[in-house]
Order: sequence, then C-alpha cells, then structure tokens
Amino acid sequence: MPPSELSPLEWRGDCLRLLDQTRLPHAEVWRDVRAADEAAAAIREMRVRGAPAIGVTTAYGMALAARGAAALPAPVFAAAMQRAAETLGAARPTAVNLRWAIERATAELAHGRAPREAAEALLDLAHRLREEDVATNRAIGANGAALLAGVSSLLTHCNTGSLATAGFGTALGVVRAAWRAGERFEVFFTETRPWLQGARLTAWELARDEIPARLIVDSAAALLMQRGAVDAIVVGADRIAANGDVVNKIGSYALAIAAERHGVPFYVAAPVSTIDPRSPNGASVVIEERPEEEVTRLACAPIAPEGTAAWNPAFDITPADLVTAIVTEQGIVHAPYAESLPHAAEPAYAR
Amino acid sequence: MPPSELSPLEWRGDCLRLLDQTRLPHAEVWRDVRAADEAAAAIREMRVRGAPAIGVTTAYGMALAARGAAALPAPVFAAAMQRAAETLGAARPTAVNLRWAIERATAELAHGRAPREAAEALLDLAHRLREEDVATNRAIGANGAALLAGVSSLLTHCNTGSLATAGFGTALGVVRAAWRAGERFEVFFTETRPWLQGARLTAWELARDEIPARLIVDSAAALLMQRGAVDAIVVGADRIAANGDVVNKIGSYALAIAAERHGVPFYVAAPVSTIDPRSPNGASVVIEERPEEEVTRLACAPIAPEGTAAWNPAFDITPADLVTAIVTEQGIVHAPYAESLPHAAEPAYAR
Repeated sequence: MPPSELSPLEWRGDCLRLLDQTRLPHAEVWRDVRAADEAAAAIREMRVRGAPAIGVTTAYGMALAARGAAALPAPVFAAAMQRAAETLGAARPTAVNLRWAIERATAELAHGRAPREAAEALLDLAHRLREEDVATNRAIGANGAALLAGVSSLLTHCNTGSLATAGFGTALGVVRAAWRAGERFEVFFTETRPWLQGARLTAWELARDEIPARLIVDSAAALLMQRGAVDAIVVGADRIAANGDVVNKIGSYALAIAAERHGVPFYVAAPVSTIDPRSPNGASVVIEERPEEEVTRLACAPIAPEGTAAWNPAFDITPADLVTAIVTEQGIVHAPYAESLPHAAEPAYAR
Repeated sequence: MPPSELSPLEWRGDCLRLLDQTRLPHAEVWRDVRAADEAAAAIREMRVRGAPAIGVTTAYGMALAARGAAALPAPVFAAAMQRAAETLGAARPTAVNLRWAIERATAELAHGRAPREAAEALLDLAHRLREEDVATNRAIGANGAALLAGVSSLLTHCNTGSLATAGFGTALGVVRAAWRAGERFEVFFTETRPWLQGARLTAWELARDEIPARLIVDSAAALLMQRGAVDAIVVGADRIAANGDVVNKIGSYALAIAAERHGVPFYVAAPVSTIDPRSPNGASVVIEERPEEEVTRLACAPIAPEGTAAWNPAFDITPADLVTAIVTEQGIVHAPYAESLPHAAEPAYAR
C-alpha cells in the first residue's frame, strides 16, 4: 500500500501490532504488544517513535492494561491502571503526546465505571485517538500545502511521515499533500543522526510516494541553503511551548538558525495536541538524553574507540523567533505565538 | 607513543608508509606506497586525509614518481613527472595543499637537473615539507593556545590532529598546546558525518592525550551552544580564500552560524600554505562532491533503502564574517582578512 495509507500501528482484536521501526528499511517486522509494559518498552526502545505515534501507542497501552485487569476488583484495577500510567509516563520524557494520552485515558477512568466498562471505554478512546490522528494529519497537510505553492525544493528533518503518526504524517504529510496538489519539487532530507530516521524511514516513505528526493548528512544543510537550493524547511514537533518555542528532533535548531541566515522559511507542522500550555517556554521542557552507545555505536558495531564518552540529547529547542509559522489541523499560526497559540489549543486538552 | 608525537606518514628508505585512516580506530594498519598513482589512490580513498597530510603525501608521491623514472632519458622522465603531477592533482580538488605540493615539486624540476639529481631533490623536498609541517603545527599550537586562556569547554570538528598532518595537528594541535600549557577544559567533538573522522580519529587522539572529551552528533552542537556549554570553537581549513572565506569539512559552516548566534568565538587554525591568494573568495573554490554511497552506506552496510539518492559535498564555505580569527604559524590574523591575509602568505608559495 502507498505509505500515505500506511499505519505503523494496528489493533488486532486482542493486541496492538506495531511495525518495528528499528528494523526498517531492511526488514518489515511487525511486533505484537499485549500489555502496558510492552507498549512502554516499544516506545523506550524506539520500535515506535514520532510524537503522534507515541501518543496513540500510549493510549493502546492504557487500554491493554485495563483489559488485563478488567476481571479484578475495582481498587485492584485502579492500582493496576495507576501503575500502567506511571510505566508509560516514564517511557520517554519529551513528547507531550505521551502525557496527553495518559491524561485522556485517566479522564475516562474518572467517570466511575466498573473495570470492564472502563476497559471498553479505554479501547474506544485508543481507536478514536488513532482515527483522529489520521484525520488531523490530513488536515495539517491540506493547510500546510498552501505554504508550499511554487517551491522548487524543500528540506525536511527526521521522519514525520506515516511512520511517525497513526498515518499520513505531519511535516511529511504537508510535503505529501503539496505533491498531491500538483506542486513539483525536490525534497532534501537529512539522515538524522544518531538514529538515522531520515536515511532509514523518510527515504523509505518518499521512495514509495515516488517524490524525487536526496539524502544529505545533517551538517550539509547549511551549504545547501547557502547555494539557494532550499525554498522552505518543514519539520515536526515533539512539544510546542506556550511561547512558540519548538522542541523537536536534535538538529532542528541548527537548521532553523541557518534558515534565518539565508531567508528560508522554517515551518513546523504538528497537531494542536503538541502545544503544551503548561510549558511556558522551551527551557522548561525536559530534553531527553539517551544512552551514549547510540552515538558511539552504529547498528551494533562500534564506530568510536572503546571508552569514548558521548552526550546524546534526543531533542533541541528552536526559539519561537526562528519559526516562520506553525501548521496545525486548525490552520496556520503565526507570531506572536504567545497570543496566537492559546486560540489553537485543543478544547479536549485545554479543559 | 603519544599522538602528539605520532605521524601518519613515514619514509621507509624506498617507500612511503601510511597509517590507513579508514581502518582506525579498530585497527592500526600501515600501508606501503611505492608510486605516484598509489599515493593518489590513498588520497582519493581517504586512507590519508587532512589538508596538510595530503600535501606532504603528494610531495612524496612526486618523489616516488621521480625515483621510478630516474633511469630514463630526460624527456621520458619529464613526461612521467607530468603524468604524476596530473594524477596526483586530480586525486581531490578542494585542499589547496595538494596543488601547492605539486607546484613546489614542479619548481624543483624546473632547475634543469638530470633525472637522478631531480629525484634526490624531490625526496629532499618531501622530507623538508614533512619536517616543516610538524614545526609549523607546533607554532600554530603555541600561537593559538593564547586564545584559549581560561576557557572551560571547547568544540572541534572533524580531525585536525596528528593524523591530519605530518604530526601534532592544526586545530587539535591548538587544543593540545593549550592543554599542555596548563589550561583545563572539556573538549566536545563532533562525529563528523559521513566519514566519522571525529568519532574515529579525534576520539582516538584525545583519549591518548588523556584530555577529557565527549562525542556529539554534528547536529547537537547548536543545543550545546544554546546551553552556554561552549566557550570557543576551533576548526582547521582545507583552503582559505583571499577574502578570509574558509573552506573546511562539511558542517563547519553550520557551527559558525550557530556560534555567531551564541557569541561563541569561531577560530580557524591552519598553516599559511592553506591560504590561497588565487581564490578570491569561497565561491570560487571547487567543493568536492564525493560518492553517494558514502552517505547511503556505513562501514559497507546500507543504512538507506536501496536506490536512495544522496548529495555528498565533502566541504563547505564559512564566510569570512563568521570567522573570529585565523591562527597560523606566523601569528593570529584578524578581519578585515582581505587586508591582513596577504601579509601572512608564505614567501615560498607567493613567489
């Protein structure tokens, strides 16, 4: 199936099935997830990644926990759900969608339902979030495509496509929507060290969509802009602070600084659920630091000498002043973000 | 031996022996080079790399060609030398040191010596350039160390140490000299995709010097600067244009842009032989584009899907306005470079 129709997560009647993204593009391996701690492990180990996909996986993780404990007395069930929320909540710290999914699930539990009913409600919620995510991404794509009218080349970072979401994608969804709308351009995409989400996953999606594309190392983007070969940059977000600071994959900030120097618009595409009114600015967001081995080794083989120390932040903070516009499912948000973002906050989340 | 005393190239009486840098840090493999075309291949395949080391290897390549043809009649000898110059000159296009070494060798040939005499003269020249390079680097180190007084952390890119030169190093030589002078700091070094000269080679040298150091992916440098964790950046150069534009390893430009935003000084350390009066600016320098497979594959294993296209520039151009100072063996050169650089041009070269 075309990647625009692909979803990396499917409910199989009694378990969640995930496309293992650590194995792409060399193998398409699907893994069954049957409990909340398995969902948390899949998130932590980046078998599923991308803020929206993490959010939906978390919702299914809560549903799986509820199904597993549905036969237990209500207080035991409640304790099990508390543990599941804690386990999932600790899987990765930066993407707000994870916390958001837990809070949506916890709100369902607060309705005082019996365990079996609650388990049904949580599974319904997970299905709903999954469907909503695809619809949201298609709306982001439609809104963002308008920004790309007439561009002849684009740059994107990391993977923000179907694989990063329940389907279609955020920033890559915008690229996809613009292409489908008849725009013709070349896409440059960064390899995105250390996990190579660009080289492995974005390459995979763009090839299947038959969109002309070229891979670059992350550090080549500035030269590309200096040569006038980038008309726009589109990236996703893992969290957007109330002031418009954007927390996204490590390397986004360097792209934004270079974009400013070269007058290249820097667009961020994300669902409004990524906007976090409780993070006043980027500095208030916990930036996940991942294991040193992810940098010193590659595909299990050492690339640095034994004993080399590394610093491995997974995300960085692009200050709002470098963000040209934020594309959401509700429309395009411009600076000053402190004023414009609250109007974009999702009603269900803002309550 | 400590890496400060290490040289990646040694004359062995009848051949040049090179430390194969594609095999480091996992294996220390030395390779014998017996002819000019073998020297050109070693340069092209990056078994020897770094502008100064390329220059010295080129000089030995010319000497090997001369020794191989020394018994031939003068016109045949001259033709062989012409071919050697062309083969070596085409090995890599960006580092000016390669052209510079060929021109130095050609000047020796112009003295009208008999082939055997000329061969001796070329070998003497290669030895001299090798010795000069080490002395030059020690002088660069001493000059640059003064710029690092009081810093608590540094960032460097690629490998500019003993391995990139005939010994001691340029930018890494400055770091080394400052450490020996008693400065105490932590060094952050980029992995330097796609060849991983940082992860493989700089890590290897810093560990042997016991200088505290941490590896980062190239794209994490901007976040590090945002956090105030970088007091200075020191990089090398493959060519410095007459106006002060610096052509250096891909990724240098992105570091310089981020450095400017964060008020971090951006220093370039290079011998005056790297200054090219014939390149008026960076845009006039040919930027080598290397094979796509260097990006789509890693250590011979594919990282991107089959058929992925890539753009693989080996160098980029940092405009002079982002360069805080250029450290040479003759002293520290400041803007305006168009005025200050001619005074730093090497006499032997400028003629």
